[in-house]
Amino acid sequence: MTRRSMRTAVLTEPGAIVVESRSVPEPAADEVLIELRSVGVCGSDTHYFDHGRIGDHVVTGPLVLGHESSGVIVAVGAEVDPARVGERVAIEPGVPCRQCEQCLAGRYNLCPDMVFHATPPVDGTLTEFVAHHHAFAYALPDEVSFDEGAMLEPLSVGIWACRRAGVAPGVRVLVTGAGPVGLLAAQVAKAFGASEVVVADVNAHRLSVARELGASETVDVSSTSLTDAYAGRSGPDVVLECSGHEGSTQAAITVAAPAARVVLIGMGGDTLGLPLGAVQNRELWVTGVFRYANTWHTAIDLVASGAVSLQPLVTGHFPLDETAAALTAARTDPTAIKSVIHPNRD
Amino acid sequence: MTRRSMRTAVLTEPGAIVVESRSVPEPAADEVLIELRSVGVCGSDTHYFDHGRIGDHVVTGPLVLGHESSGVIVAVGAEVDPARVGERVAIEPGVPCRQCEQCLAGRYNLCPDMVFHATPPVDGTLTEFVAHHHAFAYALPDEVSFDEGAMLEPLSVGIWACRRAGVAPGVRVLVTGAGPVGLLAAQVAKAFGASEVVVADVNAHRLSVARELGASETVDVSSTSLTDAYAGRSGPDVVLECSGHEGSTQAAITVAAPAARVVLIGMGGDTLGLPLGAVQNRELWVTGVFRYANTWHTAIDLVASGAVSLQPLVTGHFPLDETAAALTAARTDPTAIKSVIHPNRD
Amino acid sequence: MTRRSMRTAVLTEPGAIVVESRSVPEPAADEVLIELRSVGVCGSDTHYFDHGRIGDHVVTGPLVLGHESSGVIVAVGAEVDPARVGERVAIEPGVPCRQCEQCLAGRYNLCPDMVFHATPPVDGTLTEFVAHHHAFAYALPDEVSFDEGAMLEPLSVGIWACRRAGVAPGVRVLVTGAGPVGLLAAQVAKAFGASEVVVADVNAHRLSVARELGASETVDVSSTSLTDAYAGRSGPDVVLECSGHEGSTQAAITVAAPAARVVLIGMGGDTLGLPLGAVQNRELWVTGVFRYANTWHTAIDLVASGAVSLQPLVTGHFPLDETAAALTAARTDPTAIKSVIHPNRD
Amino acid sequence: MTRRSMRTAVLTEPGAIVVESRSVPEPAADEVLIELRSVGVCGSDTHYFDHGRIGDHVVTGPLVLGHESSGVIVAVGAEVDPARVGERVAIEPGVPCRQCEQCLAGRYNLCPDMVFHATPPVDGTLTEFVAHHHAFAYALPDEVSFDEGAMLEPLSVGIWACRRAGVAPGVRVLVTGAGPVGLLAAQVAKAFGASEVVVADVNAHRLSVARELGASETVDVSSTSLTDAYAGRSGPDVVLECSGHEGSTQAAITVAAPAARVVLIGMGGDTLGLPLGAVQNRELWVTGVFRYANTWHTAIDLVASGAVSLQPLVTGHFPLDETAAALTAARTDPTAIKSVIHPNRD
Repeated sequence: MTRRSMRTAVLTEPGAIVVESRSVPEPAADEVLIELRSVGVCGSDTHYFDHGRIGDHVVTGPLVLGHESSGVIVAVGAEVDPARVGERVAIEPGVPCRQCEQCLAGRYNLCPDMVFHATPPVDGTLTEFVAHHHAFAYALPDEVSFDEGAMLEPLSVGIWACRRAGVAPGVRVLVTGAGPVGLLAAQVAKAFGASEVVVADVNAHRLSVARELGASETVDVSSTSLTDAYAGRSGPDVVLECSGHEGSTQAAITVAAPAARVVLIGMGGDTLGLPLGAVQNRELWVTGVFRYANTWHTAIDLVASGAVSLQPLVTGHFPLDETAAALTAARTDPTAIKSVIHPNRD
Repeated sequence: MTRRSMRTAVLTEPGAIVVESRSVPEPAADEVLIELRSVGVCGSDTHYFDHGRIGDHVVTGPLVLGHESSGVIVAVGAEVDPARVGERVAIEPGVPCRQCEQCLAGRYNLCPDMVFHATPPVDGTLTEFVAHHHAFAYALPDEVSFDEGAMLEPLSVGIWACRRAGVAPGVRVLVTGAGPVGLLAAQVAKAFGASEVVVADVNAHRLSVARELGASETVDVSSTSLTDAYAGRSGPDVVLECSGHEGSTQAAITVAAPAARVVLIGMGGDTLGLPLGAVQNRELWVTGVFRYANTWHTAIDLVASGAVSLQPLVTGHFPLDETAAALTAARTDPTAIKSVIHPNRD
Repeated sequence: MTRRSMRTAVLTEPGAIVVESRSVPEPAADEVLIELRSVGVCGSDTHYFDHGRIGDHVVTGPLVLGHESSGVIVAVGAEVDPARVGERVAIEPGVPCRQCEQCLAGRYNLCPDMVFHATPPVDGTLTEFVAHHHAFAYALPDEVSFDEGAMLEPLSVGIWACRRAGVAPGVRVLVTGAGPVGLLAAQVAKAFGASEVVVADVNAHRLSVARELGASETVDVSSTSLTDAYAGRSGPDVVLECSGHEGSTQAAITVAAPAARVVLIGMGGDTLGLPLGAVQNRELWVTGVFRYANTWHTAIDLVASGAVSLQPLVTGHFPLDETAAALTAARTDPTAIKSVIHPNRD
Repeated sequence: MTRRSMRTAVLTEPGAIVVESRSVPEPAADEVLIELRSVGVCGSDTHYFDHGRIGDHVVTGPLVLGHESSGVIVAVGAEVDPARVGERVAIEPGVPCRQCEQCLAGRYNLCPDMVFHATPPVDGTLTEFVAHHHAFAYALPDEVSFDEGAMLEPLSVGIWACRRAGVAPGVRVLVTGAGPVGLLAAQVAKAFGASEVVVADVNAHRLSVARELGASETVDVSSTSLTDAYAGRSGPDVVLECSGHEGSTQAAITVAAPAARVVLIGMGGDTLGLPLGAVQNRELWVTGVFRYANTWHTAIDLVASGAVSLQPLVTGHFPLDETAAALTAARTDPTAIKSVIHPNRD
């Protein structure tokens, strides 16, 4: 590894990405240096690009976006096995402190001192090289591509939600919202053995993708209510709420089966009007997910075995210079699902 | 057992209780006949008395109230051990179908065919004798009085909530609302080993009772917010919400620790404005309780061992003829907590 | 339903099956009368046939064998929906008391008063008609055959084991023993999403069937030890022990990963020499399964969806008159896996 | 902190302790330097002293014993808050790697790279000063003495066992073996709310101590078998096996209730003859404990609140010069339970 400088796409102010030259970082003793190959665009990247903030997270200086990443290890720190140089890896974008109460309890996603890519003021991966803790760079088998490696991050959200919800054979699942996260969550629910995976959305194209990816049934809620869709049969044991839409969430809670688990994945408003009678009389469990913990190995298995298909979700490829176009692709193309940026490909 | 008729307090219309003569019931093959000794008044009884309905449960004909009950077995059905005659028992007021999916899974409280005392159209126990399934009449040891036996029912709500919430040593608990259920829930949390049991209410008298019963700390939320009360220290790992008050519930959710469990016990409005950021970013679990399952043996143990004190909560004794007075005692006496009616005592 | 008598295969003494004429039973109020179509032969049936006992269960009078059963409802008791006449059903062979502590807690398989087909002195289903509690006769969809319906019983053992063991994506499973139960357990583990399902046996034919049914890898332990098979890689997170062989069980425990769950399904001797260091230092959980609870709906889903293949396991069909031949088929044909008897087919 | 040298008790060969002068260690950036005040003697220390090994752990050079420790922080590394100097602390003796699969899953006690006091070749705390990772040195409140602080380590074993076993109100516990660990486990079970804590041993004195510390019942198994002790009543839902004795373990498993959890805490032989019928037919869960994880905060709470009494277990105090006497105190005094060494007191 002899290069000293690299190109980096920087969000300098809302709506403006500038590709700058920066120094290639030096890996610390417990880090690896990774040459980035694929970086997926997440809705949060676009939100920072558009608005300069997400809730309490405010961009106050130049910020590098990107946190769905894969690449190749090109150098290692002093404590890392040098044999890892050349290894193809997927990157888990958050590195927790590993010594607080949450970390030691195995809930490292709730670590208050988490350092997470592309969350201000921490830079992300829309750059040629990144140094990262070795334990959070996972070897990819040959059958998992760099694009798929990058998408293990959103896949992890689905895995984490299905784990928290206890999806398994015999469990009926309803996914509300068929965006990238919903389409992944539906596939993961299937891979966890769910007996039934119903996907609800208002977008007919997305519902057709859901069916292609294995949903057992779809509901176009622009014409059929969830109440009608579940009339005369058991409601879902698990709701994976990926729409962030209050009415949809309430409808899902209303049809949920006794003792169902409702996982709020989609970002909605500040407050959700929770139907209290449903939650109390049927003893529903309602929770949210905040990122994930211990999911990458499972994510790799699901993709390597073919249980989950990531490639159909990739609808656009961009060089680093076209980062702004990648961030806004979904605006102009209603069939766009996931854009991938390749920082090291011209 | 030679008596043929008995006195029964009947809610004939909202606000009107009439003591009638009814036939003593004949126990079915799997039932016992119980002479009632103590019947506690629950807020739901008073609500039916005042309004003739609770939500979807509407009183459409004469109804006998009362579902917190104890007594003595005076006769048994053909399949029940005759040695049980003379046994002092506490009554679990709901008898589930025992053959549906919920029952067979051990969640019999969610049985759609539950037959539950004093839930229209099923009569309750404000009467001299009741026939009840033998498996839901639990032998009381000598050290548990009839009054305590009746109060095992509200105690069961606290046990069920603490079980669902995973209360144990090392767990910090916040109880919002210090009415009868909150005072019991706080004691149960202590008996489950909670490291800290904070009780919040606006009523100074109830908070002083909470302290006497073992709360480690009380917060008068008329003067101190929960946010202030928890400033600079860890929030609760478990919230037992017993107030039914939206603002109080929201405040509790806001201070809850990462991965906390929030159990909604109090009855509130139709909708709760759920603070979404707190639920998602800290991965809280929010649930309700609907009655209880498999709690009576534990309830008896807690009372017999002295881990929970029920007697201090009994603030009034009434004969059957004064049922209306018992139902409304809390209206006139702000220190009233629990009224007990004795159907077989003059 | 006008027939009064039926043919029944009776074990009169070890080694002797006599087909007798018996009265067709009358369904009780909560029962259905089922005309039997397929009855699978289980190793326990053969064991009773050979030895007249299994452990403490001793055959002391004439006994009807058979507890893996499917058929058609031909009559219903007074409390059962008459519309069920004509329904194709699979039979869960045990009917629990539904009022003891175990039943009410959802662990009805541990009910001390269970009435279970072909467990002395309770008769089984090698007969033309059987009366059975309606809640334990499950409607079969068209895509599940009678043979498959009968095999939902051994399939349930695999489901129950995988549930107890927490099999899910990310979990590596080792199945020791590739008999009928092991082959089913391996398929179920796959359907639960296991990342890896290794099957070990000494019988090359069975191992080849395991591979055809989806095992990710097989180990012929007559030539390769489990220690060698797992050298240099992570041991299994779950062991499904289906061989009943002590050495095999010990070897599996020795290679199990930290925090692994070991489920003892196979019947072995009275005592298992448990490697204490492995259990303590790696905090393994070791348990057994006793039948199953709440598995039939899931079993039907797994078969209807094609996640599990039962048909390849059926290696012989027999009329009722050839019950003895069915019971002993595996003795003469090393490739025999599962024999099915058809009581109502000539 | 100006001292450069300190006195250290070193096991130079089996049976020989030499007090040497060593350099006071320098705390690393994430460490604190602790002046030791109380160090409890554990059976494992005595075993190393006597035999020079425990199973695979062999003492091959000079070794400092002691892993139950408390003291005062006298210096801190660069990354640690200097305000901690002067803090009274209890020491969790094992520091895990915090980046392996087990650590990230919250099971850090199973970390293969754990560095643990007094486990060869890692030195323990029978010395005046020790440097230790700051996150594993826990502040002691005033109401917890140094002796109690040292004993939080064996207390943690009891907490960990009760957590794994699901001890709670309604749960009946049997503790086999009333040595230091058994006496602590029994107290912890009580503090977790167990409805019944039966303690079994052959030593009448220890059983009387168990009763004083709150056991609800004791069984002298030199005269009464566990089978007799449990005749006519429910067996234990949880067994905390602290004797390491095979016959006792088997007897406990034989009387355990359906679905009971059996935790093997005591060290026994290489193999335990597991009664297979009991484990399978009653679906027992059998497991071991290996140290503990995330227990110190709970341990401090239990002692500070008085739920657990540690002081009665301390039966001897020794200066560092009398380490050998402390290690062998139990040999000459049958009433000795726990010896404490004070490295910084003359």
